[in-house]
Amino acid sequence: MSQFFTQKDTIMFEGPDATSPLAFRWYDKDRVVFGKRLEDHLRFSVAYWHSFTWPGGDPFGGETFLRPWMHGSDPLALAKQKADVAFDMFRLLDVPFFAFHDVDVAPEGATLAESIDNLKVITDIFAKKMETEKVRLLWGTANLFSHRRYMAGAATNPDPDVFTYAVGQVRAAIEATHKLGGANYVCWGGREGYETLLNTDMKRELDQLGRFLNMLVEHKHKIGFKGPILIEPKPKEPTKHQYDYDTATVYGFLERYGLAKEVKLNIEQNHAILAGHSFHHEVMLAFALGIFGSLDINRGDNLLGWDTDQFAMDVGELVPVFHEFLKGGGFTTGGLNFDAKIRRQSIDPDDLLIGHVASMDACARALIGAARMLEEKGLEGPLAARYAGWDSAESKSILAGERSLDQVADRALTIADPQPRSGRQELLEGVVNRYL
Amino acid sequence: MSQFFTQKDTIMFEGPDATSPLAFRWYDKDRVVFGKRLEDHLRFSVAYWHSFTWPGGDPFGGETFLRPWMHGSDPLALAKQKADVAFDMFRLLDVPFFAFHDVDVAPEGATLAESIDNLKVITDIFAKKMETEKVRLLWGTANLFSHRRYMAGAATNPDPDVFTYAVGQVRAAIEATHKLGGANYVCWGGREGYETLLNTDMKRELDQLGRFLNMLVEHKHKIGFKGPILIEPKPKEPTKHQYDYDTATVYGFLERYGLAKEVKLNIEQNHAILAGHSFHHEVMLAFALGIFGSLDINRGDNLLGWDTDQFAMDVGELVPVFHEFLKGGGFTTGGLNFDAKIRRQSIDPDDLLIGHVASMDACARALIGAARMLEEKGLEGPLAARYAGWDSAESKSILAGERSLDQVADRALTIADPQPRSGRQELLEGVVNRYL
Amino acid sequence: MSQFFTQKDTIMFEGPDATSPLAFRWYDKDRVVFGKRLEDHLRFSVAYWHSFTWPGGDPFGGETFLRPWMHGSDPLALAKQKADVAFDMFRLLDVPFFAFHDVDVAPEGATLAESIDNLKVITDIFAKKMETEKVRLLWGTANLFSHRRYMAGAATNPDPDVFTYAVGQVRAAIEATHKLGGANYVCWGGREGYETLLNTDMKRELDQLGRFLNMLVEHKHKIGFKGPILIEPKPKEPTKHQYDYDTATVYGFLERYGLAKEVKLNIEQNHAILAGHSFHHEVMLAFALGIFGSLDINRGDNLLGWDTDQFAMDVGELVPVFHEFLKGGGFTTGGLNFDAKIRRQSIDPDDLLIGHVASMDACARALIGAARMLEEKGLEGPLAARYAGWDSAESKSILAGERSLDQVADRALTIADPQPRSGRQELLEGVVNRYL
Amino acid sequence: MSQFFTQKDTIMFEGPDATSPLAFRWYDKDRVVFGKRLEDHLRFSVAYWHSFTWPGGDPFGGETFLRPWMHGSDPLALAKQKADVAFDMFRLLDVPFFAFHDVDVAPEGATLAESIDNLKVITDIFAKKMETEKVRLLWGTANLFSHRRYMAGAATNPDPDVFTYAVGQVRAAIEATHKLGGANYVCWGGREGYETLLNTDMKRELDQLGRFLNMLVEHKHKIGFKGPILIEPKPKEPTKHQYDYDTATVYGFLERYGLAKEVKLNIEQNHAILAGHSFHHEVMLAFALGIFGSLDINRGDNLLGWDTDQFAMDVGELVPVFHEFLKGGGFTTGGLNFDAKIRRQSIDPDDLLIGHVASMDACARALIGAARMLEEKGLEGPLAARYAGWDSAESKSILAGERSLDQVADRALTIADPQPRSGRQELLEGVVNRYL
Repeated sequence: MSQFFTQKDTIMFEGPDATSPLAFRWYDKDRVVFGKRLEDHLRFSVAYWHSFTWPGGDPFGGETFLRPWMHGSDPLALAKQKADVAFDMFRLLDVPFFAFHDVDVAPEGATLAESIDNLKVITDIFAKKMETEKVRLLWGTANLFSHRRYMAGAATNPDPDVFTYAVGQVRAAIEATHKLGGANYVCWGGREGYETLLNTDMKRELDQLGRFLNMLVEHKHKIGFKGPILIEPKPKEPTKHQYDYDTATVYGFLERYGLAKEVKLNIEQNHAILAGHSFHHEVMLAFALGIFGSLDINRGDNLLGWDTDQFAMDVGELVPVFHEFLKGGGFTTGGLNFDAKIRRQSIDPDDLLIGHVASMDACARALIGAARMLEEKGLEGPLAARYAGWDSAESKSILAGERSLDQVADRALTIADPQPRSGRQELLEGVVNRYL
Repeated sequence: MSQFFTQKDTIMFEGPDATSPLAFRWYDKDRVVFGKRLEDHLRFSVAYWHSFTWPGGDPFGGETFLRPWMHGSDPLALAKQKADVAFDMFRLLDVPFFAFHDVDVAPEGATLAESIDNLKVITDIFAKKMETEKVRLLWGTANLFSHRRYMAGAATNPDPDVFTYAVGQVRAAIEATHKLGGANYVCWGGREGYETLLNTDMKRELDQLGRFLNMLVEHKHKIGFKGPILIEPKPKEPTKHQYDYDTATVYGFLERYGLAKEVKLNIEQNHAILAGHSFHHEVMLAFALGIFGSLDINRGDNLLGWDTDQFAMDVGELVPVFHEFLKGGGFTTGGLNFDAKIRRQSIDPDDLLIGHVASMDACARALIGAARMLEEKGLEGPLAARYAGWDSAESKSILAGERSLDQVADRALTIADPQPRSGRQELLEGVVNRYL
Repeated sequence: MSQFFTQKDTIMFEGPDATSPLAFRWYDKDRVVFGKRLEDHLRFSVAYWHSFTWPGGDPFGGETFLRPWMHGSDPLALAKQKADVAFDMFRLLDVPFFAFHDVDVAPEGATLAESIDNLKVITDIFAKKMETEKVRLLWGTANLFSHRRYMAGAATNPDPDVFTYAVGQVRAAIEATHKLGGANYVCWGGREGYETLLNTDMKRELDQLGRFLNMLVEHKHKIGFKGPILIEPKPKEPTKHQYDYDTATVYGFLERYGLAKEVKLNIEQNHAILAGHSFHHEVMLAFALGIFGSLDINRGDNLLGWDTDQFAMDVGELVPVFHEFLKGGGFTTGGLNFDAKIRRQSIDPDDLLIGHVASMDACARALIGAARMLEEKGLEGPLAARYAGWDSAESKSILAGERSLDQVADRALTIADPQPRSGRQELLEGVVNRYL
Repeated sequence: MSQFFTQKDTIMFEGPDATSPLAFRWYDKDRVVFGKRLEDHLRFSVAYWHSFTWPGGDPFGGETFLRPWMHGSDPLALAKQKADVAFDMFRLLDVPFFAFHDVDVAPEGATLAESIDNLKVITDIFAKKMETEKVRLLWGTANLFSHRRYMAGAATNPDPDVFTYAVGQVRAAIEATHKLGGANYVCWGGREGYETLLNTDMKRELDQLGRFLNMLVEHKHKIGFKGPILIEPKPKEPTKHQYDYDTATVYGFLERYGLAKEVKLNIEQNHAILAGHSFHHEVMLAFALGIFGSLDINRGDNLLGWDTDQFAMDVGELVPVFHEFLKGGGFTTGGLNFDAKIRRQSIDPDDLLIGHVASMDACARALIGAARMLEEKGLEGPLAARYAGWDSAESKSILAGERSLDQVADRALTIADPQPRSGRQELLEGVVNRYL
C-alpha cells in the first residue's frame, strides 16, 4: 500500500443519507437492476493519464499537484512508484477496470526500442499486480500526439517516416494490451487532422489513415487479439480539425475504408458537445449505426470551447443516456472509463478519490432511474404509439422497397391532408424528471 | 418589364474604379481566366425564395419589405406579378441561372392536386419567358418544411401519411424541374431531424430517409432526368438536429443507403460554419470524397448561432475556396446559387440588386486571385514538397496495402527518430494575401 | 370558463408519486420552506405572449397551433376571446401573477391613438376579471421591436420620430401597468442594438437610450408608480448585438447614465447562456451589484445559438440558482415569469398546461433542495472557511484602503511564499447532488 | 548579433510585387497617410512571451521549438541569451516597441526578493541595449497567473497572503517598466475569475480587485509614472470566467471602483471574439466610452473556442477596425502589440520573422485602405445622413433632458407613423470592399 492517500480502506456503499465524500450513496455494486449487478452494468474504469500523469497545468499555468512520482532523476523508478499509487487507488475505489496509454505508464526512451523495453518492464509489473488484484484492463492505447515528431499527425503525417514510427509504437501498445488481457484497443487520433487547410491534402491524409487502421485490424487478427478496435471521435483540439470528428463522420470513414464491421466507437461526453451534439445523441446514433463500443465518461462545460474533462455529475443528463444504453443492450467489451480529471485547484490527494466517488454515484443513480423508466415504459410507451402507423403492411412495403415513387405519389393524391399530432415534448421531459 | 426597380438597364462591368453600387467592378463576364469565361466558371444563380418570397420578418418582427406581390386576394395573379419582377431582376443582373422551391413560385392549393395545378400554371409561364430570356434553371426543389403537416419531418415523419404526401409533392417538383430543363434537383431536409430525442427513433427515421432518397433516384432515372440529385447539408435550424449535418455525415448516409454514386452535395457557407467547419473545409472534403456538386453562396455571421444568409462579401475567405474549386475542376452541372437575403432593413427595391452585384464582384475578384495563385503554384508548390516523401516506392507500397503492420513496425526499429519540418502556416497565409 | 382546455379544474398538488402530467408532484404551494410558503417564494407568473400570441411559427415554418382567437375578422373580439382563455389558464394553474406586452393583449390600431384605445378596452376587461380572480400583474411592457417602424431600434433609432413614437407607446404601457397594479415595469430592448457597425454610431445610440430610460424613470415617479423599472439583458437576436448584453454590461450602462439606483434587472436563463454565462452567474452577479429584480424562467439549449425559450426542467441547474436566490433574500417585487413557450409541435391545448406544471414542479423541487442546502450550510460552510483569512484586521485594513501599495509590497517581502489550498470543486459538486 | 536567425539584415519595404516572405509589401514605414508616417500610426510592438518564452506546447503536446535559451542549467545566462535574440529580432523587424511580463525576461527566484533581483539584472541589460537600439518599451506587466500560488487568482485570491505577494510582484514590475521608460503598464487578470461558483464569493472578489487596482493607480502617481494603467479584457481561459470579461464589463467595473478616469483598455482581437464580439465592436465601444488605450493585435479562429493567438492576416476584418481607430484619433500612448504566436508547427527560426512581417503588412495595407475610405467619406457620408434627424433643435432638446416623457409622448400623438428607411448594409459592405 502506498502512503499517498489518507484514505486507507476500500470505499463502501453507505446509502443515500451518507454525508462523507468518501462513501458511496448510490453505487451499491451488488445491487441488481434490469437483470444485472450495478458493477456489471457500469464496468467502471480509472484512466491512468488524467489521474496519474497530468501535473495540473493548463495553457496559462504550470504544475499544481506536485506528485512525488513526477520529481526525480530515475524515470523507471518513478514509473514504478506511480504504478503503486495507481493500483492503490484502484483498490480504494474498488473499480473493476483501468486504462492507459503507453507513455502514461512507462517513460519514453532515447530510441523506439528503448521505449518498448520500458513499456515491457512496467507492464510486467502490472501483470504481476493483476495476479492478486481484482482490477482488469479495459483498454490500452498508444500516445501518438504528444511528442514533437507527431506535431503534424501520426498516420496522416506528410512524412512517411513518422507514419512508420507510429506503426512501430502502436504494435508495441496493442501487444502490451493483449498481454495484459485488455478487453479492447483504442485509437484516439489527436493530431490526425489539420491546423490549416493551406498546407493540407485531405484526400491523401484520409487514405493514409484508412490504411493505418486496416493494418492494425489485420494485425489484431494475426496476434489473436479478440477485443474490438475502438475509435474515439473528437472534432478538434489540439488540432483545428480532427478527422474522427463525431460518430457520423467516423461511420462514413469506416464505410469508405471497409472497416465498419471491425471497428467500434469509444464515445466521450465532452467530445460530443465540442462537436455540437448531446451525449445522448452520440450514444443513440452509435447504437443505430451498430458501432457502439465503449464510453469515456466525463463532462464538458457547455459554455467553454475546449475539453475540460470534468467528472460527470449531472444526473439529469445521464438518465436518458443510460436509458438508451440499456435499451441498446449495454456494454459487451466496453466500460465507463473515467476520462476525467480533477480541477487543477483540487490539489489534495483525496480529491482524486472524491471526484471518482461522486461521479460513480451520479452514474449509478442515473442508471437506476433509467432502468426504472425503461421497465415502466415511461418513454417507450409513447414512442411506440408515435410511430405505430409504420407498422401497417402498406407502410412496411414502402420501406422494404416494394413501392415506387409513382405508386406512393399516386396514393398521395387520394388521401386527406395529414393532420399533425402533438410531439408532447414537455410531457416527456416531465416524465424523465420523475426518474431522477 | 416590371416597374419595381428604378434600375432599368442590364448592369454592366465598369472596372475597379467604378463607384456606383450598380456597376460591376470585377465581374467582367467574358474575361477568360484559367481557361474559361468568368460567367462559365461562376454560373451565378438567383434564388427565388430569399429575393422574392421572404417578407423581411424575423423571429421577433414581421414584414418590412411590403412587396406589392405579397398583398392581394388572388394568389395566382400575385404569383404572376412576382414572376415578372423575378425575370426582370434576372435580366438586370445578367445571371445565367435561377433556382426555386415549388411553393416559392406558386401558391399552395386546398389539396395536393390543386397545388400541383398551380405549380403547372406558373412553370408554364416560366417556360414561356425562358424562350426569350437567357436565364436557365439551375435547380428546383420541393419545400417539405414550412407547412404544419411537416412540423415533425417529411420523409422522417412518424406518420407514414406525411411521408406519402411528401412523395406526392416531390414528384411534382422534380417533374417541373425536368420540364424546365433544370440542371440539378436539390433536397434540403429542413425538418428531417429532431427537436428532442425523447420522442425520436433515429434508426427508424434514417431508414425512412434512405428509402425516400432511393425512390427519388429511381424515379429520376425513370423519367430521364439527367442532372444529379443534390443534398444540401445543414446541421440544425429549424430543428435541433438535422440528419444531413455536414459533408462527412451525408457521405456516411449515402454509403449506408447505397446512394454515394447517385447523389452529390450542394454546400452552403452558412451551413458549414453552423456545423463548426469552414466553407473551405466543406468544399475540400466534398471534392476529396467525390461528391462535390454545387454551391449555395452566402455568408453567415461567425458570432451568431443561426443562419443569417448574408451576401458573400469576404474576398479573403473566398480566395482559398475558389482555389480548391478550380483545383477540383470547378462545376459540371452546379452553380453559385445566391442563397442569400438582403437584411430586413434593406427595404429599397434596388437593395436587392446592390446585394447581388456586390457579392458577384466579391466572387469574381476571389476567383481571379485564386486562378492566379493556382497558376503560379503559390500553394501547390509548397504542398507537393511537403508530401514528397510519399512518392517513394516504399511509401506507395505501404498505402497500396502491400506491407503488413509487422513489416512497417520492424522498419520503424531501424530508422532514426523522424525530425519534424516546419508547417509554414504564416508563410502560406502571407502567400494567400498576395492574391487578394 | 372558456372551452379551450380539456382540463376544467384547478390543478392540485398530489405528491411525488403522482403520474398525471396535470398534477403537481413538488409544488405544494402552502408548504413552508425557509420561512415562507412556496407560492410566496416562487411568485409564478404566466407570460401572455408565448402562451397566447405566438402561433407556433419559426424561421422556416408557419403557424402550427391554429388557436381560435388568431383567426377572425374582428381584432378586438379576438382579443377578448384570448383574454378569456388566458384567465382560464391562470385559474387552472393557480398562479399568482401574469405579465404582458401591450400588443400581446390588444390589437394595434391604424394610429397610435387607436392602439392606445384598444389597449384601454382590454385592460379594462383585465381589471374587471382581476376583481374576482386571484391573479395579479407581475409586470407590463411595451413591444418596441415587432413593427417595421422599429426595425432599426426604438430609443436608439437614427430617426428621432421613431424615438418619439416609442415614447408615446411606452407611456401608454406603463400607465396601463400602473392602472392594473403591476408590481414592476419591464424594458426589453430587443432592437436597441445594431445589425452592422458600418451604419452605426454606437456612442450616439447609447446616449439616446440613456435619455429614454431617464425619461421613463422621471415619469414613473411623476405618476406615482412604485414598482421598479426592470431591464432585461439579452446579448443578441433579433439584432446582431443588443446594448443590454448581460448583467455586467447593463450595470455599466446604468452607472453611465445615473440610473443604477432606479433600475433593476429581469434576468432570463436563455439570455444568460446566449451571452456566454450560466444562469447562476447572472443571478449571483446581479445580487453582488445590487440590481437583482426579477427572473424570466425558461431554458435554452446549450448547443443551439438562438433563444429556444423552453420550459425550465433541469433541477440540477436550478438548485444552485435558487440557493443564490435564497441567500440574497429572494424576490421583493419580482417573480418567476414563464418566458417559455411550448415547442411548436406541442399543438394540443393541454400541452400549454403540462409545460407549466412540469416546470413549476422542477422549480419547486429545486427550491426545496436549495433551502435545505442553505440551512445545512452545505456550501456556505466551506465558503466561509475558504475566505476566512480576509476576516483578519490586517486584511480588512487592506480592503478598507488603509494600506498603500508600498506597505503591502513591503510586507510581501517578509512572508513565506503562500501555499495554495484545494478548491475542492468535486467535493462541492457532490454536495449539491445530495440536494437534488 | 545572435546567430539564431538566418536573416541578418533589417527587413526592408520592397513594394506590392515582392514575393520574398522577408520583405515588406505594404509596410513602408515612412509613407505618410492621414497626416502621419505609417510607423507613427501603427506603433508596432513585439511581445516577449509568445515569441521568446513559449516552447511550442499545447494541452496535448510538449515543446516543439527547442530554443537554445530554454535548455541549460544557468537561468540567468539563458535569460541573457534570450535577450540577445529578442533584441536581434527587434532590429531585424525594425519595430519601434516591445512588451514583456516580468517572468518572460527573468527567471523566478527561490523568494520574491530573489525574483526581483533577477528582474533587475535583466532590465539593466535591457536599459543598456536600449541606449543604442531604436526599440522602446510599449509596456511591462507582471505575470500573476502561471505560478501555482496564483491558481485561485492573485488580487481575487481567497487567501490574503496571495494578494499580498501579488502586490509585491506588481510593484517590482511597474517600477521596472518605469525605469525603462515604458509608455504604459498593463494588467491582464488571467485568473481573476472563477472555476466554479460553488466555491466563489463574487462580490467579495470584485471588491478585492477594485482595491488592488486603486492601490496600483495611487502608486503610479506616487512614483511619477506618466503612462496609463491598461486593463486587458478577456472573458475566459484559463478560468471559466474572468472578471474583465469585455470592454463593457470593464467599463462598469471601473465606474464601480472610481477608476474610469485613470485606467484604459488594451483590446485584443482574439479576446473580443471569445466574448462574442467582433474586434470592430470592442474598438468602437472603447472609443465611445472614452477608455480606448492600446491594441493586442492578433487573430482568433472563429470556429475554435480557445485563444489561438494567430498572427492577424485578415485585411478585410482590419479595414473597418482601422477606420474606427483613425476616426477616434489613433494611439496616444498605445501601440499594436503582437500578442501573437507562430503555430507550434512553425519550428524554423525564420518563421518568427515571417509571421511578423506578413501581419505587419496586413495591418499596413488595412490602415492605408481605411485612411482612404475615411478621406473619401465612404462610410462617414452615409452615416451622417442616416442620423441627420437628430441634428434638429427639437431632437437636441430631447437628448439634452429638456423634454419630459409627457411632452414627447404628446407629440407622438400628432405625428404620422414614421416610415423606416433602408439600412443599406449591402451597399456599405460593397463600399468597404473597394478599400481592401
